[in-house]
Amino acid sequence: MKRPTIKDIAAAAGVSKGAVSLALNGRAGVSESTRARVLDVASTLGYRPSVTARALSSASADAVGLVLVRPPRALGDEAFFFQLIAGMQSEMSSALLLQVVSSRDAEIALYQRWWAEHRVDGVFLVDLLVSDPRVELMSSLGLPAVVVGGAGHHGSLASVWADDYAAMTSVVEYLKSLGHRRIARVAGLSSLLHTVRRDQAFESAVDGVIVSGDYTAEAGAAATRSLLGSVEPPTAIVYDNDVMAVAGAEVALSLGVVVPDELSIVAWDDSVLCQHGRLTALSRDTFAFGARAARALLAVVEGASPTDVEDVLPELVVRGSTGVAPGR
Amino acid sequence: MKRPTIKDIAAAAGVSKGAVSLALNGRAGVSESTRARVLDVASTLGYRPSVTARALSSASADAVGLVLVRPPRALGDEAFFFQLIAGMQSEMSSALLLQVVSSRDAEIALYQRWWAEHRVDGVFLVDLLVSDPRVELMSSLGLPAVVVGGAGHHGSLASVWADDYAAMTSVVEYLKSLGHRRIARVAGLSSLLHTVRRDQAFESAVDGVIVSGDYTAEAGAAATRSLLGSVEPPTAIVYDNDVMAVAGAEVALSLGVVVPDELSIVAWDDSVLCQHGRLTALSRDTFAFGARAARALLAVVEGASPTDVEDVLPELVVRGSTGVAPGR
Repeated sequence: MKRPTIKDIAAAAGVSKGAVSLALNGRAGVSESTRARVLDVASTLGYRPSVTARALSSASADAVGLVLVRPPRALGDEAFFFQLIAGMQSEMSSALLLQVVSSRDAEIALYQRWWAEHRVDGVFLVDLLVSDPRVELMSSLGLPAVVVGGAGHHGSLASVWADDYAAMTSVVEYLKSLGHRRIARVAGLSSLLHTVRRDQAFESAVDGVIVSGDYTAEAGAAATRSLLGSVEPPTAIVYDNDVMAVAGAEVALSLGVVVPDELSIVAWDDSVLCQHGRLTALSRDTFAFGARAARALLAVVEGASPTDVEDVLPELVVRGSTGVAPGR
Repeated sequence: MKRPTIKDIAAAAGVSKGAVSLALNGRAGVSESTRARVLDVASTLGYRPSVTARALSSASADAVGLVLVRPPRALGDEAFFFQLIAGMQSEMSSALLLQVVSSRDAEIALYQRWWAEHRVDGVFLVDLLVSDPRVELMSSLGLPAVVVGGAGHHGSLASVWADDYAAMTSVVEYLKSLGHRRIARVAGLSSLLHTVRRDQAFESAVDGVIVSGDYTAEAGAAATRSLLGSVEPPTAIVYDNDVMAVAGAEVALSLGVVVPDELSIVAWDDSVLCQHGRLTALSRDTFAFGARAARALLAVVEGASPTDVEDVLPELVVRGSTGVAPGR
């Protein structure tokens, strides 16, 4: 059967070719009843939009990409990313092409494919590694990109970031001012640049134990159990995210360790979880952070020079989980 | 300047045309060093992938779509959707094209554009309306779609849903068994099909007040204040989501109304919020629900007949926010 043309549809529906085009493309300028009739006729005639029509009609992919390397099940609990995505979308009139993959290699391959297939106009890079191959890849592909997080200054890429070093220093200083000397840190993934920055700040500020975690409740609980079971247990623990901190607070409760009398707890990434658990937390407006990242990416896509935007320092919100050190 | 071809790049890089193609498309079969050299050469020569190459190479858009109609700021707090998205991605090897829009009209227009531009192989439809124009639109476009939620049986579309009527009935029966007679409901958006189904079940089971909300903490707080300030305040309130329920519990606390002694609270959509607030809640595995929806959509995209999959009934998880009615 011959593939029906716009002209065939116009004739059958009794409208102009222009009206058919508007109707098929979801544009304004035709009434809803005309649109419905055109779609009906198009469907009856077996019309399918040409897969090349769009590619030929525009140089823009009309989407930007975000790849997350995470076990999907764990990702669903990370409110941070959904807030970030919501903030990004608040500044974009185009769609977000989102894909969750299981490895860094798969992530790299996906950017290459998206670039080769012209699927995205640019990408957000999150979870920056200490020595991150994506920075070089984006430069060699010439794919506009914004690094979200990290510590700023990534080759020729734009970035939007917060100063994790200064934030960690302020947390430790706060705990020291309450008399804490045995302070521990439950860190996130050690391959991530912001984890290393926080490690460095922590080690400069205090002589304390660092235990690695992977942001899950299980990791937070295990690290806390191990720290509290040691010969000289810490009197304060700083966690790299909200989920691990809440799990840590529950372990303390189950062991009969009273928060904050015997143990102070500080969480990174304030959230409704921290609010309702009354946890002292580092708070920032993740939604606004996402919005800022989107503006930076759209600017680069439109040809602006990449800029390095330092976000406001996260603010320490003191709630019931921190207090003076025991015996002080 | 002449647009460089694959052949030009192969000659300049000293590799075969096949190797260039593999390297540019992010496929296996070339070493990382070759890939890097090819990308460098391509970039130096000013190569840009053809925007039509992909369209011509495949009939598949290699993405499925999800449009959410929400104020982006409010969306970031809805853990439900991120769990759903994570579950969808766990079953997909392709990307999710996600866009947040501000109106139902914008949503409709977007599906038409995505269809016309062959941007997606199919779409997930969420937040089903009582009489939803999207069902008819998908049929007339011939765009594969799965209705997520709703109450099943939507024209010729596949659907994955849970029985909201039976779930609400079970909640009211549980509260009645505790002696509650004055039961109120803080409902979600009244335009949504599942809200209407829950309203109907509620009204059949008990003679109680229904107050409308929009899932925000503000709405939950305002509704609770109004209910508790009435002449005959309820002894139990059922909320349509976790955020409104937690806000309601805080209003009760601030008014000196003791939960559960004077007021029982039940939340829909169990979450970490409910767990930490010790709220009795209707629980379901939203991640698994998203995974099921993705499997249903992929099946339809591959040509299977649309099916109607009823998900397991949400389970009532009893925590500290419900108890026997006062004076009983």
